[in-house]
Amino acid sequence: MRIDRRRIEGTIEELGRIGETPRGGLTRLALSDEDKRGRDWMVSRMREAGLSVSVDQMGNIFGERAGAESLPPVLLGSHVDSVPTGGKYDGQLGVLCALETLRSLDDHAIRTRHPVTLVIFTNEEGARFQPAMIASGVLAGKLALEDAYNARDRDGIRLVDALERIGYLGPEPCVPRAFRAYLELHIEQGPRLEEEELSVGVVEGIVAISWSRLSIHGVQDHAGPTPMRIRHDALVAAAEVVTGVRRIARELGGDLVTTVGNLGVSPNIVNAIPGRVTLSIDMRDPQDATLDRALPLLDAVVQAACEREGVSYELEHYWRVPRTPFDAGVVAAVERAAKASGARWRRILSGAGHDAQYMAAIGPAGMVFVPSRGGRSHCEEEFTPMDDVEHGANTLFLAALDLAGRA
Amino acid sequence: MRIDRRRIEGTIEELGRIGETPRGGLTRLALSDEDKRGRDWMVSRMREAGLSVSVDQMGNIFGERAGAESLPPVLLGSHVDSVPTGGKYDGQLGVLCALETLRSLDDHAIRTRHPVTLVIFTNEEGARFQPAMIASGVLAGKLALEDAYNARDRDGIRLVDALERIGYLGPEPCVPRAFRAYLELHIEQGPRLEEEELSVGVVEGIVAISWSRLSIHGVQDHAGPTPMRIRHDALVAAAEVVTGVRRIARELGGDLVTTVGNLGVSPNIVNAIPGRVTLSIDMRDPQDATLDRALPLLDAVVQAACEREGVSYELEHYWRVPRTPFDAGVVAAVERAAKASGARWRRILSGAGHDAQYMAAIGPAGMVFVPSRGGRSHCEEEFTPMDDVEHGANTLFLAALDLAGRA
Repeated sequence: MRIDRRRIEGTIEELGRIGETPRGGLTRLALSDEDKRGRDWMVSRMREAGLSVSVDQMGNIFGERAGAESLPPVLLGSHVDSVPTGGKYDGQLGVLCALETLRSLDDHAIRTRHPVTLVIFTNEEGARFQPAMIASGVLAGKLALEDAYNARDRDGIRLVDALERIGYLGPEPCVPRAFRAYLELHIEQGPRLEEEELSVGVVEGIVAISWSRLSIHGVQDHAGPTPMRIRHDALVAAAEVVTGVRRIARELGGDLVTTVGNLGVSPNIVNAIPGRVTLSIDMRDPQDATLDRALPLLDAVVQAACEREGVSYELEHYWRVPRTPFDAGVVAAVERAAKASGARWRRILSGAGHDAQYMAAIGPAGMVFVPSRGGRSHCEEEFTPMDDVEHGANTLFLAALDLAGRA
Repeated sequence: MRIDRRRIEGTIEELGRIGETPRGGLTRLALSDEDKRGRDWMVSRMREAGLSVSVDQMGNIFGERAGAESLPPVLLGSHVDSVPTGGKYDGQLGVLCALETLRSLDDHAIRTRHPVTLVIFTNEEGARFQPAMIASGVLAGKLALEDAYNARDRDGIRLVDALERIGYLGPEPCVPRAFRAYLELHIEQGPRLEEEELSVGVVEGIVAISWSRLSIHGVQDHAGPTPMRIRHDALVAAAEVVTGVRRIARELGGDLVTTVGNLGVSPNIVNAIPGRVTLSIDMRDPQDATLDRALPLLDAVVQAACEREGVSYELEHYWRVPRTPFDAGVVAAVERAAKASGARWRRILSGAGHDAQYMAAIGPAGMVFVPSRGGRSHCEEEFTPMDDVEHGANTLFLAALDLAGRA
């Protein structure tokens, strides 16, 4: 039994046109007009497939294919929002493979014991509203609905108002629910599968993640008549932090990755010494213990850089997710499905956070990875060859069927 | 003969309320609503003082007090635009001391041989439209009117459209004109006068200035699953450039100042490796030869940082102003006036560019400096004590009278 390669190729192209960038990437920020159009398109396809569609208080969309028995569903999810100038595979591919799974069950006239339900999560990326995975976080009871509603984008717009604006502030309670399994297909976003010429990653879990934010307060002054000896330049201190963050990864080695992805300067004009800089620090490692060692090093890097420049600062380690192991039974089902699909596969750990992380906190969860060309993602060049998409989609389909059970 | 201290104190307060920030600073970006209100206020005061007001094609405002003879005027100028969250002295103090000079000539019923004309230049700061001093640049024939009109702010608005919007697109040709002298009072924006407890700086000229812009192109990717070994992070390279730019000032020493004031990151989100960074480099020194040595060092810093990170770049040295010596006769007149005013004074070089720089290219120019508390400017904390303002205003008044001649 196989999914329909041509059909899923078509849906990738079609949904990929909503928010497409001139260079073939995707900008579909959460709760933007493009996100609304992407959601609308998905809901139309879900209704065509005979799914029963509902929307919850966080704008998460559910499309249920009934099972033969009154049992908790197998959830197949991902997201349709993207980062700015992102690609057409991150998130989108997961919901399209889930849709393809449901359509394939119909093609083969299969009745499952458990319902099988497609889920589209709101604002997975965290590019517009922080934190990332905010909607699965609320669903899992890890974030308060009120806090999520009050998250604001750069223009000060609240998430709840943005949800209402695009018509996706739904009535269903966004609370923990029972499920047989949560399965998510996603691009690897790293180079390993491609390097080893594999099509499928059987994901065992997600690395530990730590997010910090740093505000540096220097002395804003004129870039001309202010002698070097009296300067307190927030950007000079920030630059030392950026190189120091890179150094932490080099010093601790292994699989630790460290990134300064966001940096803002004030007043940010050519002829003013920067008075204020804010920046983010993202650190990830398969082992929680490595982050426990990295965080004090970060504290020391920031302190040394700011003392040297004579500037004050606030450093906040505001988000920490421990390593998430996926459910052994779900991982075994994904592994059986990968074998049955005929794909070349390996077990792998995810370096990126996913909604599956929160779902794992309230039920059995697992993921299917497909390769990212050049390991690249969150960029317009994101690409997964169709052969790998087909293997991944078949793996998702077979694993879902395995977990939902034939009636 | 003295200016009226209480009157100028009142005008500083009154004009300072237009665009005032909650913390007592000023945000009056060129051609914004606040700039329009500041201009309107000045024009009303100029008309009240009986000046003949005209506006040129670049929005520069002239207010002439007639002389006894048909001779070129003594121009007294500065600007009313500010940087974002700037202060109430940079620019504003110069036009208000010029206004005070004209009012004081009336107070003492003095008829001058040359006309004395107040000038308010458009967009001196360069905070909204680049380059800085764009309007005196056009007046001096150093910038093309067409290019200045097409300068765009961050929102893509053209300078000419912004001028028209606020009603200051005037009919007078903005071309070189004859003048007896151009005089500008301005805050020092550095610490020297305050450190030496002086009230007045007799400005001999302006340092040489070089502006460069750098674009770094790395590889945008996901901050999680992308191993350190395959990263090409534009911000890591940029950080090394920022510290390298600081190092150039340390290595060459003397009065050289180097600043990265503007830096922008793309896509600028927590969990994406920065794919693109743009930044500015501002370098200044009393000697042109020092900049001739600094620029190749900058080239080397950028090349080394970008090669190390494996990123490409474009570096453009797009603006260079040689050291500007002011006219010996005007400087001597300012020195005589400083002495006559009773102020403690010294000769000094300006570390900041001013409209006086362009005016010096087409006629005899000079400047009067007053102290900046803590050497600070381009910030809300900008402050000059009233005793110093009074000495500065008296110096400007006496120098203007000296140069215009009694009829």
